[in-house]
Amino acid sequence: MLIHPNGAVVLLSGGLDSSVLLHDVARNLARSPLHTLSLHYGQRHVRELDCARFQSKHAGVVEHEVIDLGVIAPVLAPGTALVQGGGKVPDLDELSDLDREQPPTYVPNRNMILLSIAAAYAEARGLTRVYYGAQAQDEYGYWDCTTDFLDRMNATLSLNRRTPVEILAPYMRRSKAELVHLGVELGVDFAHTWSCYRGGVHPCGTCPTCVERRNAFATSGMEDPVLRPVG
Amino acid sequence: MLIHPNGAVVLLSGGLDSSVLLHDVARNLARSPLHTLSLHYGQRHVRELDCARFQSKHAGVVEHEVIDLGVIAPVLAPGTALVQGGGKVPDLDELSDLDREQPPTYVPNRNMILLSIAAAYAEARGLTRVYYGAQAQDEYGYWDCTTDFLDRMNATLSLNRRTPVEILAPYMRRSKAELVHLGVELGVDFAHTWSCYRGGVHPCGTCPTCVERRNAFATSGMEDPVLRPVG
Repeated sequence: MLIHPNGAVVLLSGGLDSSVLLHDVARNLARSPLHTLSLHYGQRHVRELDCARFQSKHAGVVEHEVIDLGVIAPVLAPGTALVQGGGKVPDLDELSDLDREQPPTYVPNRNMILLSIAAAYAEARGLTRVYYGAQAQDEYGYWDCTTDFLDRMNATLSLNRRTPVEILAPYMRRSKAELVHLGVELGVDFAHTWSCYRGGVHPCGTCPTCVERRNAFATSGMEDPVLRPVG
Repeated sequence: MLIHPNGAVVLLSGGLDSSVLLHDVARNLARSPLHTLSLHYGQRHVRELDCARFQSKHAGVVEHEVIDLGVIAPVLAPGTALVQGGGKVPDLDELSDLDREQPPTYVPNRNMILLSIAAAYAEARGLTRVYYGAQAQDEYGYWDCTTDFLDRMNATLSLNRRTPVEILAPYMRRSKAELVHLGVELGVDFAHTWSCYRGGVHPCGTCPTCVERRNAFATSGMEDPVLRPVG
């Protein structure tokens, strides 16, 4: 199989962070093949996937693959709030200190599952890089969004004798507000990004990711075409 | 959620190794909850799953969960021989030196995917251990069946702040012949274990796992109720 030394797949949720990442990677990859992979795992925010499709098309990717992992959601995460049939998604101001350490929207071992599938996708196509959009403003504490987590995942993947794949998360030290700035610079159409954890027609404006997104736009001084500022 | 300090899930293919492991763990677990998880990923040897069901029932598990990951098979492993629609499964004597380093039946990053799902399954139920049946006779070289691989997976999972799960592979240093002996001692019904990579009614007897199984029974001096010795 042909190995593409700079070939990459971007793990694309259709949210703000991964959409900016996609266009950022696309700008720098030059002629190496670029793919996107969206993993649907029964989460409420299916609308993200439409956004993922839109952004993939605009970035001119070789392939945008959508995999429905819905079958594992009720089995693996019977009590989580992020999947259909799970508990209520809390507002940010409803989160306790314990929740902030590991919130109810946490899906057990989610990122290891998603990244291991993305690494397999890459390996099967001779791509050597998986990009994902973890960022610093991880204020409600997912252990599987940390630098340590990433380093150890890469230490494991580096054991692959023939086609080692590396996971890159270039925004690990950048704030969401910085990503808004970068996205504007890259010409990202934020109208086609989706952040809300709840499954409504319009973003709720009060769940943790809505609040985070609103704050990021406010801090960066930009206007969000999706979520209007309060008051 | 209630944490069961010794609660465990056994990753159960229905093959020889994981079936012995299940009964071994069941004997030692006493009153802690024991679960089994079978992940179907589009492989040809679906018959394994019937065996997994049989063994789970006989071990008296709390729950035997089967997850069909077939949806990811053609997407993640377009060229592999182990999934339906993939290439031909080679006989052991057809393997080149390069194949022995990483054979055509290798599925990209398979074990990281399976173990990450198993860890999620455990975490969601307050179980702290995942058992899997990797063993020493790994003569055709899967990088993701090594001690290094296991250690690095565990180093990653140990970062989980609230419910760290540990993967245990107690047979990593034991040969398949030793497992046959142990299975006999444990009263495992080998008629309900399946090893052949090909999808026939009877095991082919020539694919790598059939040869390995036949050799293991021959070495241990036991009779295999599934696969007769040659000659």
